[in-house]
Amino acid sequence: MPDSVTLVSLSGYGDTMEETRVVVIGAGISGLTAARRLAQSGCEAVVLEARDRVGGRTLNHTFEDGTVVEMGGQWVGPTQDRVLALLDEIGLGTFPTYNDGMDLLVARSSQTRPKKVKGQRMMMAPQVLIDLGVAQQRLHRMARTVPLMEPWTAARAAEWDGQTAESWLRRNVRTRVARDFLRLMVTSVFSCEATDVSLLHLLFYCHSGGLWDRLLGTANGAQQDRIMGGSQSLSIRMAETIDVRLASPVRRVDHDDTGVTVHHDGAGGKIRAQALVSALPPMLTGRIGWNPGLGGQREQLTQNVPMGAVIKTMTVYDEPWWRADELSGQAFSLVDPVSVVFDNSPPDSSRGVLLAFIEGRAARDLGPIPMHERREVVTRQLQRFFGDRALRSIDYVEQDWCQEEWSGGCYSGRMTPGVWTQLGPALRQPIGRLHWAGTETADVWNGYFDGAVRAGERAATEVAVMLGIESDA
Amino acid sequence: MPDSVTLVSLSGYGDTMEETRVVVIGAGISGLTAARRLAQSGCEAVVLEARDRVGGRTLNHTFEDGTVVEMGGQWVGPTQDRVLALLDEIGLGTFPTYNDGMDLLVARSSQTRPKKVKGQRMMMAPQVLIDLGVAQQRLHRMARTVPLMEPWTAARAAEWDGQTAESWLRRNVRTRVARDFLRLMVTSVFSCEATDVSLLHLLFYCHSGGLWDRLLGTANGAQQDRIMGGSQSLSIRMAETIDVRLASPVRRVDHDDTGVTVHHDGAGGKIRAQALVSALPPMLTGRIGWNPGLGGQREQLTQNVPMGAVIKTMTVYDEPWWRADELSGQAFSLVDPVSVVFDNSPPDSSRGVLLAFIEGRAARDLGPIPMHERREVVTRQLQRFFGDRALRSIDYVEQDWCQEEWSGGCYSGRMTPGVWTQLGPALRQPIGRLHWAGTETADVWNGYFDGAVRAGERAATEVAVMLGIESDA
Repeated sequence: MPDSVTLVSLSGYGDTMEETRVVVIGAGISGLTAARRLAQSGCEAVVLEARDRVGGRTLNHTFEDGTVVEMGGQWVGPTQDRVLALLDEIGLGTFPTYNDGMDLLVARSSQTRPKKVKGQRMMMAPQVLIDLGVAQQRLHRMARTVPLMEPWTAARAAEWDGQTAESWLRRNVRTRVARDFLRLMVTSVFSCEATDVSLLHLLFYCHSGGLWDRLLGTANGAQQDRIMGGSQSLSIRMAETIDVRLASPVRRVDHDDTGVTVHHDGAGGKIRAQALVSALPPMLTGRIGWNPGLGGQREQLTQNVPMGAVIKTMTVYDEPWWRADELSGQAFSLVDPVSVVFDNSPPDSSRGVLLAFIEGRAARDLGPIPMHERREVVTRQLQRFFGDRALRSIDYVEQDWCQEEWSGGCYSGRMTPGVWTQLGPALRQPIGRLHWAGTETADVWNGYFDGAVRAGERAATEVAVMLGIESDA
Repeated sequence: MPDSVTLVSLSGYGDTMEETRVVVIGAGISGLTAARRLAQSGCEAVVLEARDRVGGRTLNHTFEDGTVVEMGGQWVGPTQDRVLALLDEIGLGTFPTYNDGMDLLVARSSQTRPKKVKGQRMMMAPQVLIDLGVAQQRLHRMARTVPLMEPWTAARAAEWDGQTAESWLRRNVRTRVARDFLRLMVTSVFSCEATDVSLLHLLFYCHSGGLWDRLLGTANGAQQDRIMGGSQSLSIRMAETIDVRLASPVRRVDHDDTGVTVHHDGAGGKIRAQALVSALPPMLTGRIGWNPGLGGQREQLTQNVPMGAVIKTMTVYDEPWWRADELSGQAFSLVDPVSVVFDNSPPDSSRGVLLAFIEGRAARDLGPIPMHERREVVTRQLQRFFGDRALRSIDYVEQDWCQEEWSGGCYSGRMTPGVWTQLGPALRQPIGRLHWAGTETADVWNGYFDGAVRAGERAATEVAVMLGIESDA
């Protein structure tokens, strides 16, 4: 290892080094779940968190009047069994995303007024509907053949992983509106453009989350419910019974057959443990100095799973006035940078909140401008959807996840072409005493809260087996 | 910046901090060139290097008998004017890559003996030759329309950047052998698969280096000449007159309007300067803690320019015996993991050295196996090309660049689909007092020594202008 360098130790010689059984890196949902399951098996675990808060890619914002909105991930839905079980276990309730009334759709730049739709497809020209229907059926058929644990073993994996989702759309979808509609679907699940993701990853992801309607749906879909008190509460509650060290970014991990020594910036500076669970996205694991280096496929993986780009905005009104017009607050544009809107008002409807996403290229383009200009872009778009009443907002907050050093982007890491088929096995494969959690490593509901929980539970089980711990989980 | 964390200072308060005019990160060809040009303009510069050697992605290996081989980048060729000028300036000579006699080609798995070819194309079936010729002409025509400074402004940039090189090959090349041949070309210039790179990047790269024949050629091409004493000598010589600090990996950079403070692991621990030049590949710049964070497009760029994967091997014989059979030592296989071989014997021919590349997927697959098994794979392949005499080697050395923490892979970083068109402007754009060099930022001969020199010279000029230094370079 000619490249390894000994860091200056932050603590002098002769200090007693802190010891624990397992160190978990990252106090998001996945890391905290891993630590919780280990603790429930009687296994001591310490969670090291870079930020001065828990929750990772979830973050509550509380307005002066007490209204809570979710600035990061926020929804749960049917078949997300592990996160729903965890919410039950912790005693956190959910409430339905507001979904009554019609949605709005802008499909063409030339369209002066949005169309009222439901199910996001009605009122399109028949040839567009047929085009979309055929494309979705084909994607479903393809997705079902992708094994969730080993996507690279799909019969047509080489072909699908050799192209972008965009390439498939261009070849297989004939009408412009249907193509734009499918592009918006890709952008809204990955917060990247269809050009930026492997077709195989899109198919895997659809299969992992239960196909399009479930991924994209509100009622009976992945956007069905919100968590009482805001989604960050899940992590905050879990952290109450876990030894979490905030403001302790991990800089280096020494590891060998006998254990791991984790060097961090928090108090004490280092911890010795028998095993380690990293609950970071693959990209961020590449920014830790592993000694010895992880090398080869694992190192390459950290370079090839970039994070999505999203700015989440909340525009606040004195009431959810669109509901009186029998509008759901859900609005979609195939042609504008602010392309997806939801009613994100509190459950008591004491305020009206419109959640508007800026995703993919739009997030990259609008990220550098000042906040007041971005608010103006969002407000104009809400006006385009909902009329002039949208101009009379009383507050605005936003979160640009691309600026977050300890996430590197949201919602999650994605596979670019060639990655699943060349580096897929490195995603979950432990390296000695190092184990990998995080929603990016999940087979089911990859990229969602549920995937984060499943990945944390899987990693905890791996560690328990390795350390010979009897689990009662 | 809720995510920023104050590191524990390695030196106590009250220390005098070292100061210089410019800090350069990385003592490869690009960083050393930048420092050299600055010094020649009378501007003090300190180069911080993570490794305990200079040269970056160049590395000499000297056998016991004094024979030197290049374990990293090694060639220079016509039109690489800036690196040729630098070699002249430093007084380093070149010598021609051995190129007499016939090359060998294995085009199909079923082929029992390699075909003798010259120019790499003869003796193929007419339909393959026509297919290849048409494809290359089309690629040339497309490549010429890609502006080197701003590839994203090409008229068809969106279309080309939305697909992989593999997608284009599948749609536009009809014969299997021609497709495999073009795939090998992609792999041999990018050390990745055609699935792993944007078509727009392939076109940019061809244009940047002067089109296929120049990129791939030996005589009159990018592989024409080698550097006397090994290619690392270029960096070693430059470093003789530059203040280079080895074993000083940079961990954090504080930067604002007044200057930069660079925190590193070497003696002193930190240096204050008026400007900084990073000569690292974009991926590695993402592993430094920038304070404040670079955010947005620059941060995203660091996640989206993965490094190539290559293991370079040298098999040594008592003499270059293949020359007696009128073989050049150059051999190519479209179907084997060891796919490209060159005669890399020393200029006095006192030894025979066959350089065999393991690139892309093959490097990822063969990296994890023990060295003696990998040597066996290489030896069998040389036997397949050159006959049983290839079994009687006297030595073997190899370098797996995927294992190198301070490179992260070789030859260089590549653009995956969607990156040029969304993040291209962030590649060279200075951020305050931070400037970006490295061959990945070059317009001409991007990815080569010449690009590294050009990028270093450009960054030095930028800094000189910013600091108001009169340049005599």
